[in-house]
Amino acid sequence: MKKLNIGVIGCGFMGRTHSNAFGKAANFFDVPYEPVLKAICARTGDRARLFAGKWGYERPESDWRKLVESPDIDLVDIASPNDTHAEIAIAAAQAGKMVMCEKPLGRNPAESESMVKAVEAAGVANMVWYNYRRVPAVMLAKQLIDEGRLGKIFHYRTVFLQDWTISSELPQGGEGLWRLDASVAGSGVTGDLLAHNIDTALWLNGEIDEVTAMTETFIKSRKHTLTGKQEPVRIDDASAFLARFRNGSLATFEATRYARGHKALYTLEINGENASVMWDLHDLHRLQYFDHRDESRLRGWRSIHVTDGDHPYMKNWWVPGLQIGYEHTFIHQVADFLKSLDGGGPASPTFAEALRTDYVTDAVLRSAADRAWVKVQSGR
Amino acid sequence: MKKLNIGVIGCGFMGRTHSNAFGKAANFFDVPYEPVLKAICARTGDRARLFAGKWGYERPESDWRKLVESPDIDLVDIASPNDTHAEIAIAAAQAGKMVMCEKPLGRNPAESESMVKAVEAAGVANMVWYNYRRVPAVMLAKQLIDEGRLGKIFHYRTVFLQDWTISSELPQGGEGLWRLDASVAGSGVTGDLLAHNIDTALWLNGEIDEVTAMTETFIKSRKHTLTGKQEPVRIDDASAFLARFRNGSLATFEATRYARGHKALYTLEINGENASVMWDLHDLHRLQYFDHRDESRLRGWRSIHVTDGDHPYMKNWWVPGLQIGYEHTFIHQVADFLKSLDGGGPASPTFAEALRTDYVTDAVLRSAADRAWVKVQSGR
Amino acid sequence: MKKLNIGVIGCGFMGRTHSNAFGKAANFFDVPYEPVLKAICARTGDRARLFAGKWGYERPESDWRKLVESPDIDLVDIASPNDTHAEIAIAAAQAGKMVMCEKPLGRNPAESESMVKAVEAAGVANMVWYNYRRVPAVMLAKQLIDEGRLGKIFHYRTVFLQDWTISSELPQGGEGLWRLDASVAGSGVTGDLLAHNIDTALWLNGEIDEVTAMTETFIKSRKHTLTGKQEPVRIDDASAFLARFRNGSLATFEATRYARGHKALYTLEINGENASVMWDLHDLHRLQYFDHRDESRLRGWRSIHVTDGDHPYMKNWWVPGLQIGYEHTFIHQVADFLKSLDGGGPASPTFAEALRTDYVTDAVLRSAADRAWVKVQSGR
Amino acid sequence: MKKLNIGVIGCGFMGRTHSNAFGKAANFFDVPYEPVLKAICARTGDRARLFAGKWGYERPESDWRKLVESPDIDLVDIASPNDTHAEIAIAAAQAGKMVMCEKPLGRNPAESESMVKAVEAAGVANMVWYNYRRVPAVMLAKQLIDEGRLGKIFHYRTVFLQDWTISSELPQGGEGLWRLDASVAGSGVTGDLLAHNIDTALWLNGEIDEVTAMTETFIKSRKHTLTGKQEPVRIDDASAFLARFRNGSLATFEATRYARGHKALYTLEINGENASVMWDLHDLHRLQYFDHRDESRLRGWRSIHVTDGDHPYMKNWWVPGLQIGYEHTFIHQVADFLKSLDGGGPASPTFAEALRTDYVTDAVLRSAADRAWVKVQSGR
Repeated sequence: MKKLNIGVIGCGFMGRTHSNAFGKAANFFDVPYEPVLKAICARTGDRARLFAGKWGYERPESDWRKLVESPDIDLVDIASPNDTHAEIAIAAAQAGKMVMCEKPLGRNPAESESMVKAVEAAGVANMVWYNYRRVPAVMLAKQLIDEGRLGKIFHYRTVFLQDWTISSELPQGGEGLWRLDASVAGSGVTGDLLAHNIDTALWLNGEIDEVTAMTETFIKSRKHTLTGKQEPVRIDDASAFLARFRNGSLATFEATRYARGHKALYTLEINGENASVMWDLHDLHRLQYFDHRDESRLRGWRSIHVTDGDHPYMKNWWVPGLQIGYEHTFIHQVADFLKSLDGGGPASPTFAEALRTDYVTDAVLRSAADRAWVKVQSGR
Repeated sequence: MKKLNIGVIGCGFMGRTHSNAFGKAANFFDVPYEPVLKAICARTGDRARLFAGKWGYERPESDWRKLVESPDIDLVDIASPNDTHAEIAIAAAQAGKMVMCEKPLGRNPAESESMVKAVEAAGVANMVWYNYRRVPAVMLAKQLIDEGRLGKIFHYRTVFLQDWTISSELPQGGEGLWRLDASVAGSGVTGDLLAHNIDTALWLNGEIDEVTAMTETFIKSRKHTLTGKQEPVRIDDASAFLARFRNGSLATFEATRYARGHKALYTLEINGENASVMWDLHDLHRLQYFDHRDESRLRGWRSIHVTDGDHPYMKNWWVPGLQIGYEHTFIHQVADFLKSLDGGGPASPTFAEALRTDYVTDAVLRSAADRAWVKVQSGR
Repeated sequence: MKKLNIGVIGCGFMGRTHSNAFGKAANFFDVPYEPVLKAICARTGDRARLFAGKWGYERPESDWRKLVESPDIDLVDIASPNDTHAEIAIAAAQAGKMVMCEKPLGRNPAESESMVKAVEAAGVANMVWYNYRRVPAVMLAKQLIDEGRLGKIFHYRTVFLQDWTISSELPQGGEGLWRLDASVAGSGVTGDLLAHNIDTALWLNGEIDEVTAMTETFIKSRKHTLTGKQEPVRIDDASAFLARFRNGSLATFEATRYARGHKALYTLEINGENASVMWDLHDLHRLQYFDHRDESRLRGWRSIHVTDGDHPYMKNWWVPGLQIGYEHTFIHQVADFLKSLDGGGPASPTFAEALRTDYVTDAVLRSAADRAWVKVQSGR
Repeated sequence: MKKLNIGVIGCGFMGRTHSNAFGKAANFFDVPYEPVLKAICARTGDRARLFAGKWGYERPESDWRKLVESPDIDLVDIASPNDTHAEIAIAAAQAGKMVMCEKPLGRNPAESESMVKAVEAAGVANMVWYNYRRVPAVMLAKQLIDEGRLGKIFHYRTVFLQDWTISSELPQGGEGLWRLDASVAGSGVTGDLLAHNIDTALWLNGEIDEVTAMTETFIKSRKHTLTGKQEPVRIDDASAFLARFRNGSLATFEATRYARGHKALYTLEINGENASVMWDLHDLHRLQYFDHRDESRLRGWRSIHVTDGDHPYMKNWWVPGLQIGYEHTFIHQVADFLKSLDGGGPASPTFAEALRTDYVTDAVLRSAADRAWVKVQSGR
C-alpha cells in the first residue's frame, strides 16, 4: 500500500482523536494509502516527545514551521487552538502540503477566506474535521433525505447543550481552557458548538438565508489562567437563533454550556411531509425515524440501532448490536479522505464548504449584537 | 336507556376502581344499559355510608347477604378480599344475579371450580376483572397476534415487579394488608401478580402445558395486624417459573414485591417469527412493535403512542397524543360487559376462563413445593 | 355537601373534558361543593339533548343567553370556540355568575382585557382552563422551583408539536376545524398551542420581557367548510420565538402543526444552576430530574414516575405505579377551584393572570410581522 | 517500554477484536508493556498474510503449533473456534507461554479442567476474554455492589437475546457459522451467550448453587455447509433457567437466537434492599441506577451516561458525553492484563475462574436434559 506521511500539530484532545483516526483507518477500511505517523508537534519538546512515544510518531517537533516545511511530510493536520489555524494552514498550503484542519476553520470569515484562498491557490487536498457528519446514524439520515424519503421539509430543530462552565470558579484561558478565551477561540459556543449544528444542517438541509439571534454571557468575569487576574469574559456562554432555510423550512438552533445535566447533548430533528428523523450524540448509535406511510395503527418512532452491515460504515466494524462510539467518526473521516485521493472528487467538507458555516456563525453573532434579522453571506 | 342496577361489595382500592368504571362507562361508550349505583356494602355501616356519599350510591349496606338477596339488584360485583369471593359469588348466582368478581377467582382451584359451577348452573352473566386485557396497547397486541402479524411464536417473557413489602417493619393482615395474609389471599405474588401475567398470556398465546417454578419468602415473620403478634409469613414474596406453551413457545414468568425501584412494573414481550411486541404498565399507553418485514436499513422498535382513533377503545376518549391511564381499563371492561348483555357471546374472561389461570397458578405453587416440572390441569 | 349548579356552553372536545371534570371531582377529592350538571348549551337543541343524555345534565339549552340568565345557575363554563368567549364571559359576569373559560381568554388582548374588567367589576370567581399546570409532574416541577432546588435559572426550552394539518386536503372552518379559521380562533398555533407553553412558563419562571419571533403559513389556501370555496389561510401554521425572562434566563419556544410524528408533544425543560427538570405530554406521568448535587459518579437524569402518594394530587387516585392521564388535569382544576371558594384566595390562573399570556402571544405575533424584537406589555 | 510479543491464532471476528485491543492499549493506558503484533495464524497462509498486512503483524503463520513453539512469542492468544481451545492452550502453557483464550474456555468442563491444570502447572499468566466485565457501566455496577450500596440482594435478572438464526435457510457449520455446529461449539446459546451472563453474574453476585433449566432447538435440521447435506441441529437455539445464588437471591437467565428485534441484547438487572442497577448492551455506555435512599418525591431510575472522568476507565478516553463502544472492552482487558504482569495478582477472569462458568453451563444443560433441579459443581 502507498504510504501517506502525516504531520500533526497539537497534542490536546483533538491531537488524540486525529492520531487515533490516522492509526486505525487502514485496519478497518480498504484505503489506497496507509497513513504513517511521521511527526507530532507541540509547543514544548517534552510534550511532543511524550505524545510521540505514546502514539508511535516517528519524531516529535516543537516548531510547527519546521514540520510544515519538512520534505517528508505529505499532509499537515492542524489540531491546535483556533488562533493558529489560519497561519499554519496557509503556510502548509504554500508548502504544497495537503491540509486537514480542526473546526472551526478560522476565528472569523476573514481568516477563513484567506485559508480557502490558500488551499485553492495551491491546489492541495483539504478537509475540515466536522466529524459528526460521519456518525453512521447521521449519515443514514443523509441517505434518507437524499432519497427523498422525508418529502418537503418543514422544520429543523437542533441544540448542543453542555454544562461544564457553570462554576464561576472555572478560570478562562490556558491549557484545556482556551475555549473560554475569545482572543484564542474567536467566539464562545457559537463557534465551538453551534458550528457543528450548522455544518450538519447545511449539509442535510441546504442553505440558510437569514437568522435572528440572541447570545448571553452569564458569568461576566473569570480569572485568566495566564495573567492570574480576574478579567471580563468576552465569549458567548449561550447562543440561540431562529432561521429560515432556502428550501422554506424553519429552524431553531441553540447552544449553551449552562444546561445542567447535559454533557455534550448535540441533537437534531428534521420534520418532513412524509417522514421525520431525530438523532442525539448521547446515544449516537441510534437514529429515530418516523414514517407516516406506515400502516396507521402501527405508526411510531422507530429506534434504529444503526449497527447492521447495510448501515453506513458499519460493515467495516463488528456485528449487529455492537455499537461504536465517538472516535469512530474521525476514523471514517480519514478513510473517506484517503479514498478521495484516488479521484472521485474531494472529501467533504472542504475548506470552501466549511467557510459557509463561518458565514452563518458570523451572521448569528452580528444579529445578536444588532438585535435584528441578518442575511447570511452567500458567496465570497 | 335501560337501567342495570349494580350492588358492589367492598370499599377498598377495587371498590373505587369498579365504582368509577360503572359510573363512567355510559359517558364514553354507547352501551345498551346504564349502570345505576344502587347499593354499596362494607363491613361497617359507617364506611359504607361514607363511600355511598362520595360515589353517589343510593344506599349503603353492611351485610352482603342482604345486598345479594335484594330484588332491586341486577348485578353483584365482588370487590372484597379473596377469602370472600367464593361464598358471595355462589350466593349471588343462586339468587339469579349477574356476577362480576375481582381477580383471582378463588383462593385455589377448588374454590374457583365451585364458583364456575354456580354461575353456569344459574345461567347468569359473569366476568372476572382481569383488567389489563383492556389496556388499548395490550388489545392492539391481541389484534396483531390474531391477524397473524407475528407469525410462529417462539418466546413469551413477562414480569410483574413491585417493591412495597421490602421493609421488615411492614405488618401482615388487616386493612390494606390482607394481601400478605395467606389465609385471606390464598397465596402471595403468585395469585396477586402472576395471575395477571398468566391471564394475559393464556389469552394472547394459548394454553400452557407445563411449568417449573421456584418461590421464596424473604421475610420469614411479620407482626400480624389483627393479633398484634409476630407470626410466620406464609405467602410467597417472589415467584418465578419457566413454561412451555402448547404452541411450542417457551416462556419465563416472574413476580416479586422485592424489586427495588419498580412500583407496579408489569411487562410482557412476545417474539414471533416475523414481528415482536413489548408492553409495560408503567407507560401503559405505548406499545413497542418490531416488524422484520420493514426495509432492512430502517428496522427498529416502533414506539406506538396508542392514542389514535383507530386504536382499540381510543375513539371514545380524547384526541391523538392525549393519554389515558389505569382506571380506564375497568371502564372498558364494564362497557364490553354491558354490550355483551345484548347478545353476541359473553364478555371475556368469564369465570370459566379465569379458572384456567387458577390451574396455572396452582401448578406453579405445586412445582415450587415439589421442585419438579408440573403439568397444568387442562380441564375440569 | 353544598351544591354548585353548573351550566356549560359547548359540546365539543372541551365540553366533554369539562363535563367529565365536574362529574368526577367530588368522587376523588374532598371539596366543599358538589358540582351539579344543571344545563348544557349547544348551537342546536338536538345536539344539546344528546349530550345532556350522555352526561346526565338536567336540561339542554340552545341559547347561551338563557343559560347565563337562569337563576338556578351558579357557574357558567365556556367551552365554545374562541370568538364566543368574550361576549359570554362578560354577560355571565354581569349576571353575577362565576365564570370559567376555556383558553385562550380572548382572541386578542383587547377582548381579554374587557373580560378581565367584567369579572373584576362583578367580583365573581373566575378561572381559565390552562389545564397543564395541574399535571402532577408539572406541579412537582413547580414545587421544586419554588423550593429553590434548581437555583438560578439559565434556560427555558419548550415546544408544542403536532402534525394533524399537513394534508392540503384538510379544509378550514366548521365543526372541529374552527381552529384553522383565523376569524374564529384569533390566531393559529400561537394562540392554540404556544398559549399553553407560555402560561406554564410564566407560572414556573416569571415574566417575559421581550421576544423575537417568526411565523409561517405553509399551506396558503384551503377550502373553507362553510363557504365551500378555496380561501386564503390566515392562521399561523408554525410559530417560534426567542425570549428573555426578567430573571435573566433565555428561552426558545416553538409550536407547529407540521412536525410529522408528533401528535401533541408539549415538552418543557428548565436548566438551573443546581438542577434541571424536563417533562413531556406524551408521557405526562413522568418527570425527568437531574440534580448536580448527587454524588458525581452517580449523577443521571432521574425518570420519576409521578404516581406516589406524596406526589401532587396522587394520593387521591390509585396506588404507586398506576398512571393517570390527560383528563385528570381538568378534574384537578375543578377540585382546586371548588376549594378556593371557601376562601384562601382565587384558583389560578384567573382571567387577570391569563391576560398576561395574551400579552405575550400578542408580542409574538407583532414581532413576527415586524421582524423585530418586541417588548411584552407588562400591565394594563 | 518493555515489549511483549503477541501471537494470535484466529482471524475471524475475535481475531479482529483482539488485534485491535493489543494495538490500542498502550495508546490510551499507562501499561508496563507494549504489545507487539508478532505473528498471526490462520488455517490458510493466504488468509493469514492478508490479515497480517491489514493489522501490521510482523509475520503470518498457518500452523498454530509453529507459532506456539516460536521462541520470540511471549503470549499466545486463542481466537479460534471452541474445539481448538483446549489443545492450543495446553500446548502453549507447556511451551511456557502466557495464554489468553476466547470464551468459553472449553467445550465442556472436562476440557476446561485440563486447560486450568495446564496453565497452573506451567505457572503462566492466563486470562479468558469475558469482555463484558470491562464495560465501564458494568464495572461501575461492580463498584457499587462492592461498596455495599445495594444492600442485601434479592433478585438477579439477565437475558441475552438475538435473532440472527430464525431463517431455516441459514446453514450450519463452516466459516462464521461454526457456532451452529455442536461438535465445534460444544453447545448453542448456553455456551455462546449464557456463558457471558453467567460470568458476569458470578463476578457480581457470587456462586450459584442450583438451577432448573429448559432448552429448545426450534429448527431441527439445517444444511451443513461442509457436507452439503441437511443434518440434525444439535445445538440449543434457546436456553432459560431459574437459579438460586448462595447469597439467597433468586435469578432468571434466558438466552435465545429467536427473539425477533434484538441483535445482541445482553441485559442485566440486580435488585437490592436499598438500590438496584440495570444495564443493557444495546446502550452499553449507560447504567440505570435506582436508590431508595433518595428523597421520596424525587426517586427515579437515574440514567447515568458513564462517560465522566471518575467513571471506570473513562479518564483514559475522551471527554464527558462522548461514548465509547464494544471494542473498548477488549482494550480494557488487555490494559488490565498488562498491568497485572507487574505484580498485584492475576487479571480476572483467569482460566480457573472461567471454569466456574463452565460448571454452571454444564449444570444448565444437564438440568434441561433431565428435567430436574441440578446442583452446580462447586470445586474441582
